Amino acid sequence: MTAAAGGAVAVANGGTAASQHDVRLAARTERMRPSAIREILKLTDRGDVLSLAGGLPAAELFPVDAVAEATQRALAANGVRALQYGPSAGLPELRAWVAERHALEDPDRVVVTSGSQQGLDLVGKILLDPGDRVALSAPAYMGALRAFDPYQPTYAPVAMDDEGLDPDALDAVLAEGASFLYAVPDFDNPSGRRAGLARREAILEVCAKHDVLVVEDAPYRELRFDDVEHPPLAALAPDRVVHLGSLSKTLAPGMRVAWMIVPDGLEEITEQAKQATDLHTGTFAQAVAYELVRDGALEARFPHLRTHYRDQRDRLTAALARHVGGRLTYEVPPGGMFLWGRFGDGVDANALLREAIDRGVAFVPGDAFYPGDGPPETVRLSFSLLDEAGFDEAARRLAAALDAYGA
Amino acid sequence: MTAAAGGAVAVANGGTAASQHDVRLAARTERMRPSAIREILKLTDRGDVLSLAGGLPAAELFPVDAVAEATQRALAANGVRALQYGPSAGLPELRAWVAERHALEDPDRVVVTSGSQQGLDLVGKILLDPGDRVALSAPAYMGALRAFDPYQPTYAPVAMDDEGLDPDALDAVLAEGASFLYAVPDFDNPSGRRAGLARREAILEVCAKHDVLVVEDAPYRELRFDDVEHPPLAALAPDRVVHLGSLSKTLAPGMRVAWMIVPDGLEEITEQAKQATDLHTGTFAQAVAYELVRDGALEARFPHLRTHYRDQRDRLTAALARHVGGRLTYEVPPGGMFLWGRFGDGVDANALLREAIDRGVAFVPGDAFYPGDGPPETVRLSFSLLDEAGFDEAARRLAAALDAYGA
Repeated sequence: MTAAAGGAVAVANGGTAASQHDVRLAARTERMRPSAIREILKLTDRGDVLSLAGGLPAAELFPVDAVAEATQRALAANGVRALQYGPSAGLPELRAWVAERHALEDPDRVVVTSGSQQGLDLVGKILLDPGDRVALSAPAYMGALRAFDPYQPTYAPVAMDDEGLDPDALDAVLAEGASFLYAVPDFDNPSGRRAGLARREAILEVCAKHDVLVVEDAPYRELRFDDVEHPPLAALAPDRVVHLGSLSKTLAPGMRVAWMIVPDGLEEITEQAKQATDLHTGTFAQAVAYELVRDGALEARFPHLRTHYRDQRDRLTAALARHVGGRLTYEVPPGGMFLWGRFGDGVDANALLREAIDRGVAFVPGDAFYPGDGPPETVRLSFSLLDEAGFDEAARRLAAALDAYGA
Repeated sequence: MTAAAGGAVAVANGGTAASQHDVRLAARTERMRPSAIREILKLTDRGDVLSLAGGLPAAELFPVDAVAEATQRALAANGVRALQYGPSAGLPELRAWVAERHALEDPDRVVVTSGSQQGLDLVGKILLDPGDRVALSAPAYMGALRAFDPYQPTYAPVAMDDEGLDPDALDAVLAEGASFLYAVPDFDNPSGRRAGLARREAILEVCAKHDVLVVEDAPYRELRFDDVEHPPLAALAPDRVVHLGSLSKTLAPGMRVAWMIVPDGLEEITEQAKQATDLHTGTFAQAVAYELVRDGALEARFPHLRTHYRDQRDRLTAALARHVGGRLTYEVPPGGMFLWGRFGDGVDANALLREAIDRGVAFVPGDAFYPGDGPPETVRLSFSLLDEAGFDEAARRLAAALDAYGA
């Protein structure tokens, strides 16, 4: 038994051979908690709540018919292989597709994962001892915090500007050491920000100065609303960056097909960690996903995706302008699915949320994206879920909630 | 930074912004290693090696056409839902199917996992602090050791007889404390053994005496070759047992659909651990799997599966009788996919394996299934992969290897 005491769960008596007893949980479970977003979504199960809260991709973009056809092709090509156990690092043709897409010489650096969330879990499993420091932006993607939490790190928040991580702030944080920097340079969740090329180089320079690894999470990378495209951090510094890519926002999250690209020297331990965790990502999902992305089929989806989400952003901002006005300030995001805003000073977004739910609209209070306390007046609004009329009504209800709150 | 020093991986210089540097790995990575079986399988990539090594289910039993049809049905019923993010604990209809199959009052106790391997990982994540003791049979399923290893437990091996775990030996082990007992009461891998009802009750009684939780792994449960059926440990002691069930051996492992049934009181932390690890098991795979198992369709497969694997066992034992004779002793397993045997005293199965590979046959040396050193003369033979002629030739080659080895 370890000296570190875990929590205790009283297990009720209901069986024949068991009696009332306690189960001692691992100490790391003290860090586990439900996702704040999922808890909010439970409140919105009422059919009449319009959601600006969830991060679900737009379902009307899912290629249902193409998935049906891809499944037939995958099963016809090699049905037995698609249903059998497979290699821990993923199907070779899918790894080769990722490698080609990222201009990698070596497909061995690619490990297919069950969503990028699993990539985050594997990063924690491989790199984090209890007490290690993880540098990340403030605010930061809460799913990353939830993935890292069981490995019991401490978090070192880095201030942001409108291009994301501030290099001077990062320098000060990394001077005190860190296991790695977690960064989302393309249309960050929740901030929506994108780092320019000079900013990317500056971030990598600071990380090189302190010899700190970067974990680059890039799920929104292809959802850009303009013609500006910057190289991923992993392309600028392949030996310093673990890159996480995903089909969840460009194809469909229910496939749970994503990938890690790891620096030379980390392939073997990553594959071993993956094998220990779930043997491999489903060969069936991988085989179908490969049929859906091969031969340029994924890239062919991008123009429509980009137009759709850009129009959605514009519908939300127009509705906010009509109904909420200056009571919410925000940057207009150049890509992604989220708008990050601030209500006026003195507004507590958590208290406002209760008024909002009563009036049939939901959002995520911004402090959910901070490892500790965050600014209470911040908010994340998703523009993926509603249509034009829905955004208009949601903004109207948000204004009514602000009225009731007295802001 | 923690005081516990991890390994260091030198990462070669290849990028523009990175220079030669070391990555400090978490201490737990010292426990990670590749699966011995997968390493052996790499040796057998030569097309002419007949494998008695791998644990792959018989591919000829995979319902390829039924998967194609089930996919069409799942997508037609609700294609968008099958491609969207889903609940962390799994699709409600699949959880309800599991609950009904196990006569559970409460589907909340079911969490769908990405294979039972993920169930083992989640058990480790929830229950194990470094240094905690895990009681398990000697030999034991090596995938469980690999799943638990990153959580840095110590292992307390329990002696077995022909019904599996010996209750007296278990009593002595649990008297010194354990976080849980890992048990495979139905056609254990590698031993092939099955515990009778009295043995199951005795094991649970010992666990109750010491107030120790049981993790029951049941992937082979339905592959029984006779009409004898004993209740799962979880049915006898629902408050003391985490039960792991899977479709990998009854339907197809490439779907990666399995489930945990947890005692009352552990639902919430299990769901949170699952969410942190990969958000949820793929909704696409779950929706297709549900269409494949609903309305008794899974149970309809069992008679054919059982006959097939029983005949396979008989083909292997007949071939061994013809060619190897008394140089290998074994129990005839009443179910599952594996035969556990012993060569004569003085035979080192690892050394014999080299002779065997040279002669075109592979097996898994038994010591791979022990957390420490195991008896060198033991061996696991799989009877899932070859046909009658293949078994005959494999046994002939094994005899030739024994000749060359001098046994």
